Amino acid sequence: MNPTDITAGQDEAWMARALKLAERGRYTTMPNPRVGCVLVKHGKHLADGYHQRAGEPHAEVHALEAAGEHARGATAYVTLEPCSHQGRTGPCCDALIKAGVARVVVAMQDPNPQVAGRGIARLRDAGVEVRLGCLEADAQVLNAGFVSRMTRGRPRVSLKLAMSLDGRTAMASGESQWITGAEARRDVQRLRAQSCAILTGVDSIIFDNSRLTVRADQLGLDDAEVIARRQPLRVVVDSRLRMPLAAACLSEPGETLVVCVEGSESPRRDALMRSGARVLEMPAGDDGRVDLGALLKWLGDEGGCNELLVETGATLAGALMDACLVDELRLYMAPTLLGSDARGLMALSGIERMAEQRPLEILDIRALGKDWRILARPALAACAEH
Amino acid sequence: MNPTDITAGQDEAWMARALKLAERGRYTTMPNPRVGCVLVKHGKHLADGYHQRAGEPHAEVHALEAAGEHARGATAYVTLEPCSHQGRTGPCCDALIKAGVARVVVAMQDPNPQVAGRGIARLRDAGVEVRLGCLEADAQVLNAGFVSRMTRGRPRVSLKLAMSLDGRTAMASGESQWITGAEARRDVQRLRAQSCAILTGVDSIIFDNSRLTVRADQLGLDDAEVIARRQPLRVVVDSRLRMPLAAACLSEPGETLVVCVEGSESPRRDALMRSGARVLEMPAGDDGRVDLGALLKWLGDEGGCNELLVETGATLAGALMDACLVDELRLYMAPTLLGSDARGLMALSGIERMAEQRPLEILDIRALGKDWRILARPALAACAEH
Repeated sequence: MNPTDITAGQDEAWMARALKLAERGRYTTMPNPRVGCVLVKHGKHLADGYHQRAGEPHAEVHALEAAGEHARGATAYVTLEPCSHQGRTGPCCDALIKAGVARVVVAMQDPNPQVAGRGIARLRDAGVEVRLGCLEADAQVLNAGFVSRMTRGRPRVSLKLAMSLDGRTAMASGESQWITGAEARRDVQRLRAQSCAILTGVDSIIFDNSRLTVRADQLGLDDAEVIARRQPLRVVVDSRLRMPLAAACLSEPGETLVVCVEGSESPRRDALMRSGARVLEMPAGDDGRVDLGALLKWLGDEGGCNELLVETGATLAGALMDACLVDELRLYMAPTLLGSDARGLMALSGIERMAEQRPLEILDIRALGKDWRILARPALAACAEH
Repeated sequence: MNPTDITAGQDEAWMARALKLAERGRYTTMPNPRVGCVLVKHGKHLADGYHQRAGEPHAEVHALEAAGEHARGATAYVTLEPCSHQGRTGPCCDALIKAGVARVVVAMQDPNPQVAGRGIARLRDAGVEVRLGCLEADAQVLNAGFVSRMTRGRPRVSLKLAMSLDGRTAMASGESQWITGAEARRDVQRLRAQSCAILTGVDSIIFDNSRLTVRADQLGLDDAEVIARRQPLRVVVDSRLRMPLAAACLSEPGETLVVCVEGSESPRRDALMRSGARVLEMPAGDDGRVDLGALLKWLGDEGGCNELLVETGATLAGALMDACLVDELRLYMAPTLLGSDARGLMALSGIERMAEQRPLEILDIRALGKDWRILARPALAACAEH
């Protein structure tokens, strides 16, 4: 930092505040992005705003309302490029211009093709000074799911698995139980609560009768009751429609989407729908099962799904890895050994030689009670062609 | 700490210095323990000493020599109870008494039954003030191997394994390669260098031709050349004497001990001895293989082995775990997936239900370059009856 420039780093400090505000929408803004806004004048804080829920005002509108007439000549810190299109609320650009804001600092350009730089252009055309890219990396992480949907047409995929220290998930017999403790469970509950949808395979429903719900009492958050009112969409990959009509998840609040291949038996489909499921037919992949890439595309395009959490067994997990559809692995590792007869973590195809191993990058390892959480992602080279 | 007592914590500070000195003998004192000594008078440092090598003077003798006449009236900080028996050097108690040392602070009692409190008693009888138990936990860790040999009659066993994130060690075909990087390799080299012996199974020799040596150029230590002059004893569990006569480890510096069951073919045994191996016959266990508990007992009693490093495959590793003979697991985890067809970490017997899992305590997880090292130990309850 240049010691003669006392304002150096001030933009970053205010933007950090705006990012903190945006975080408050972590569990509620979907399918919209999380956005925060701070208004500052003569180096002094004027007003805060953040986007709370789709259909409600954007961050900028909240902040401008709070500032009133004082906004004239102020600087606005916004974590995402202000919108230029007429949505359910008017364009935020116009609101900023109309309020007489003199300068706008933006963390990242909106990846939404309806905006994509047009918001910034409109501000500049109106004589507003704009700085783009302040704490951009943090802003990208905050909305990684939204960015994925906008730029790749599919949600960001987080694959969660719980394993022993020797990489095992259940007994050979199929017997399993939650091997991790309360802190790890709470972490997974929060992860579910901030995901738009949870993907699983029908075997997890058949053998474990997974409910895949957010439970307010396990979130450990002040506003847990409000958060748990929105249940993430449950997506069950069920190529041959083996889903039990009595599956527990079908009577939970929220929606269950059962995904089968095209041309499945209609009586079975009808029965499932009567039991409360939505049924979606997808094209089959080369292996005759649901084409997972096409399903993710559907979840992005039709489902407005930013963040998809996968909680499933070794086969579907491996199929997603094989198809290079996993953005992040979240491994919950319990301090125990289950031995080499127990079930493996991931069925990966075509690894017969060491040269074919799947390299990862480990991003973070931390303790959660007596367990450990490992965050990793496939190394870039591993899926370079995708 | 009592604020009116300005000397509070001073014993601990000087003992910490003595422990640091003792550490210098980490690679060289075996089968003796690592011991450090600091002499202090009127709150001022007088002299340091540490034990360097079996057959050479003890820590106290080095420090007393350095202090000369000034030792009279001083306080001695010793990490292990001074010896009272006539070994290759005279009893250190007598030397301290003769030098006129007024007070002796001792971290831990000597677990050696030849000493076991007699050193402290002799000091007290001579009018020397003795404080016992200063930083005892650290002193116990420093000599955990020596303590194990003295109290349990067997070495402390550290089981080292290298695995992928999904708990796999090699391809199904048996193809393996060192999957961890340079930092992890260096850590293992240092571990070998401070171990009295390295235990492996004959399959590791047959399939990987493991050398199990300390290589000076991989230690990354200033005195690497000196350290690597002592090669740990290589112990190969080889119940049926399948050891290849051309095994690389047989032509390395240091000794290789091949352990078979009693009554093995003598021509084979003779041929191995001509190839440079020592051959040891041990009673067979219930499974007809070498009784691992008896072998460890032999290594403690006859081999003077404080610290035993195990570097082996899933079968022998599992057998040691099953027999509750592992004190510490050191897992080197590489950021990669090998998939569920690859070889598992540990063949444990009799785990058919989740209730039979083997709980561990994780002591430490840290990054080593791109890899991670996990230190763990069997949870107390798991081996309670042993």
